[in-house]
Amino acid sequence: MTRVDLNADMGESFGPWVMGDDAALLKTVTSANIACGGHAGDPDVMAATMRMATDNDVGIGAHPGFTDLQGFGRLRMQVPRGMLQNQVRYQVAASVGMARAVGAHVRHLKLHGALANMASEDELLARDCYDAALSVAPDLIVMVLSGTAQEQAVRALGCTWAGEIFADRAYNDDATLVDRSKPGAVIHDPVIAGKRMVEMVQAGAIITESGKRIDTPVDTICLHGDTPTAVQIAQSVRKSLEDAGITVRRFDGRNG
Amino acid sequence: MTRVDLNADMGESFGPWVMGDDAALLKTVTSANIACGGHAGDPDVMAATMRMATDNDVGIGAHPGFTDLQGFGRLRMQVPRGMLQNQVRYQVAASVGMARAVGAHVRHLKLHGALANMASEDELLARDCYDAALSVAPDLIVMVLSGTAQEQAVRALGCTWAGEIFADRAYNDDATLVDRSKPGAVIHDPVIAGKRMVEMVQAGAIITESGKRIDTPVDTICLHGDTPTAVQIAQSVRKSLEDAGITVRRFDGRNG
Amino acid sequence: MTRVDLNADMGESFGPWVMGDDAALLKTVTSANIACGGHAGDPDVMAATMRMATDNDVGIGAHPGFTDLQGFGRLRMQVPRGMLQNQVRYQVAASVGMARAVGAHVRHLKLHGALANMASEDELLARDCYDAALSVAPDLIVMVLSGTAQEQAVRALGCTWAGEIFADRAYNDDATLVDRSKPGAVIHDPVIAGKRMVEMVQAGAIITESGKRIDTPVDTICLHGDTPTAVQIAQSVRKSLEDAGITVRRFDGRNG
Amino acid sequence: MTRVDLNADMGESFGPWVMGDDAALLKTVTSANIACGGHAGDPDVMAATMRMATDNDVGIGAHPGFTDLQGFGRLRMQVPRGMLQNQVRYQVAASVGMARAVGAHVRHLKLHGALANMASEDELLARDCYDAALSVAPDLIVMVLSGTAQEQAVRALGCTWAGEIFADRAYNDDATLVDRSKPGAVIHDPVIAGKRMVEMVQAGAIITESGKRIDTPVDTICLHGDTPTAVQIAQSVRKSLEDAGITVRRFDGRNG
Repeated sequence: MTRVDLNADMGESFGPWVMGDDAALLKTVTSANIACGGHAGDPDVMAATMRMATDNDVGIGAHPGFTDLQGFGRLRMQVPRGMLQNQVRYQVAASVGMARAVGAHVRHLKLHGALANMASEDELLARDCYDAALSVAPDLIVMVLSGTAQEQAVRALGCTWAGEIFADRAYNDDATLVDRSKPGAVIHDPVIAGKRMVEMVQAGAIITESGKRIDTPVDTICLHGDTPTAVQIAQSVRKSLEDAGITVRRFDGRNG
Repeated sequence: MTRVDLNADMGESFGPWVMGDDAALLKTVTSANIACGGHAGDPDVMAATMRMATDNDVGIGAHPGFTDLQGFGRLRMQVPRGMLQNQVRYQVAASVGMARAVGAHVRHLKLHGALANMASEDELLARDCYDAALSVAPDLIVMVLSGTAQEQAVRALGCTWAGEIFADRAYNDDATLVDRSKPGAVIHDPVIAGKRMVEMVQAGAIITESGKRIDTPVDTICLHGDTPTAVQIAQSVRKSLEDAGITVRRFDGRNG
Repeated sequence: MTRVDLNADMGESFGPWVMGDDAALLKTVTSANIACGGHAGDPDVMAATMRMATDNDVGIGAHPGFTDLQGFGRLRMQVPRGMLQNQVRYQVAASVGMARAVGAHVRHLKLHGALANMASEDELLARDCYDAALSVAPDLIVMVLSGTAQEQAVRALGCTWAGEIFADRAYNDDATLVDRSKPGAVIHDPVIAGKRMVEMVQAGAIITESGKRIDTPVDTICLHGDTPTAVQIAQSVRKSLEDAGITVRRFDGRNG
Repeated sequence: MTRVDLNADMGESFGPWVMGDDAALLKTVTSANIACGGHAGDPDVMAATMRMATDNDVGIGAHPGFTDLQGFGRLRMQVPRGMLQNQVRYQVAASVGMARAVGAHVRHLKLHGALANMASEDELLARDCYDAALSVAPDLIVMVLSGTAQEQAVRALGCTWAGEIFADRAYNDDATLVDRSKPGAVIHDPVIAGKRMVEMVQAGAIITESGKRIDTPVDTICLHGDTPTAVQIAQSVRKSLEDAGITVRRFDGRNG
């Protein structure tokens, strides 16, 4: 049986400000990366989003990022190693305990924004973050961007993990993402996004812009939740996968 | 055997700013109320203070407060009920998980500042906070100010608790504290503070300014950690207690 | 010539989170109350909103509130007098200087949220806030809710001011607002809102739910900017006023 | 007449947390760089420090930094150009208006922490910051670290400026600072610090560790305010300068 998970970032509202249509996305995805109060998400948003995810039988992930609300965790910061680890611990801890309080459970970890980008390039930084998260919750499945330093980090740590590809981004032949400034870097067409995902899941590989095939774990597909067409793309990708006979289901972890 | 616990607030530094001499206080107290990043305490401070407390065999308490750094959690805020509960959940969750990460354990809860004052006057608010904390960590022992609405709340909830009196504050005949603006309201003399505590612990009662005796649970004595003479008063109180044959030891919880 | 100003809160986005459709509202109102980074509004939002207001020839007001982002300045806080004054000074100062930087000018002041509500009930608190704002910018016109302690405060201070009524709220016979929980308290119908405003502006009075007329300065009408129908109501009110021959124009200040 | 200014960072307390002994330093320095609420300094601290500076006839500088309280503005952040400019505008605006409110006046600008370090290496970033500050307050004198990209920036802008050297840091032969990890990089001895400053001020040059002389504007000497011996070093440097016949007085600006 060919299967794959669909994940999206959620719980990124804050106070009076709403971001994304989490209720709608939760009907389509199988895993939700929920902000922890660092780059977004206040305690009310966390609690409500976790409850909704659980009601929809969607797996919950802690989604820590740099503690920079205005920049939404998208600005790179040079945070000393120990300080960064404690920030990850704090946010993961808040997630795990909040989940317990609302009858939910945090099963995976995914880094957010600039922190995720830096971890894609720097195995040591990725390991620091994953180590920190696992010190709070040893059973977490670490979601990594396949083919990056994030994957190297989980393999080095020997922890349980799942590999992710992007639904809406074109890949270069070295498995990096095509720069956003180039034409075709971002896929806006739901049908094309769905078609590509079917190909990659069936191939068990990233298929690059040039058509090259890079074997890689494809356990979960990242959908973006904060664009106007997010829900539509998510539904289209899911339908394409199911029409092709692929089971859309929450990932199990791979052993490191 | 007559025994009592000594507790003090700690981990109230933030970033580059140091508050109190936690290392010295941890040699004297048996329980530490550690800030959770709401009114004070960043993730680095939390981790370091929890490690130090554990190294000194001092019991750790989560010490949530209003999330107002400049006001240090001392300003009263009218926070809606559900929002307040989620703030308490978030802070307690962060404490519990951070403790796990550093090999420590959170065993009690104590409210901070204006939130504690409001909970002393409002049983419903106290119950909301305690309920929220227990939803994250059901085994917490709730530390309450003896004779106040806080005590009524734990009795109503039926949870495990411990009753606290102040080392350095005079009491009125209705068990409330003498207003700080009145002479004698705050006891600055370490010897007098020690002598009073011996009397109250032996009596199992608050002894008011007028000499009236109010039977009350005296499980733990609150020492203040952020005054210049904090360490000196703590040491003096401990010595007075021990000289009087009272065992200074971490409290067990009372059954609600 | 009968005339009136239309004002609305703006610049209440923050970082990645958008609130309201400021660009559309700025086509209709004549004064904009722009958040100062306390309850909402980051420096980018402030700069952009001030530029847009100036481009639309809309008068700019500093709109300070309690510095509580999650609560959006809507939670009451007991802030000591001097601290509150410095918070108002800080926010007004940031507004005035930012305006200068982008070629704009701050001409009025309006308090936000819980701070405004408290100032409506407490003349001393209102005076503290207005005094603080005027210490930064002595030429500010203070916008007050007509018939409340805010009006008493500007009359006592002798500063320049303008009186405001609500487009979408029903009034009690003592000039207070009908409680939101009661039917008819909030007017959702743009046509009714417009009709009421014409009556009140022409009467120079608040007309209460029971039909009572309370003479009061009606210099400006408060439109709400953060509801789904905000732009529609604003346009309808403006059209009703203009159809009735009332000039919609920026207020001049009254002398205290 | 040979003369020089002495400057130190101040107003870096926050809420309940005190940093440095500003009252004592203000007896010795002639210019104070006062935090603006970004990396440190709340509105109360700003107001109080500005009043004290004015009472001591000490010149006031706005001292903006990255808005990262826990990291005290010492962590490098990659902030987009326009966003950084608006952050500088906001903080300078808050300073200028707060000064007006308390009867003081902001006459100079000095960047803080990581932002200052980045501006020392990147002329464009320095120009962006200075441009932003001057858009709020065109008469500001920009304090720059002599011999760095900061100096290139003010020369390129043609604004009024003053050049600064460090009292307690050794210099390399290319005018950069000796790395803190090397022996002798930081001068802890007040007498040696004073002697070096006399030499450099009289020479109108930086004198490097190897004895090389680099002609450079020496308008002001930077003293550090947050070390245990800060006040002692400040007094010693001032005494050494005065004993050598150098007048210690507030700088005038150089024309760009």
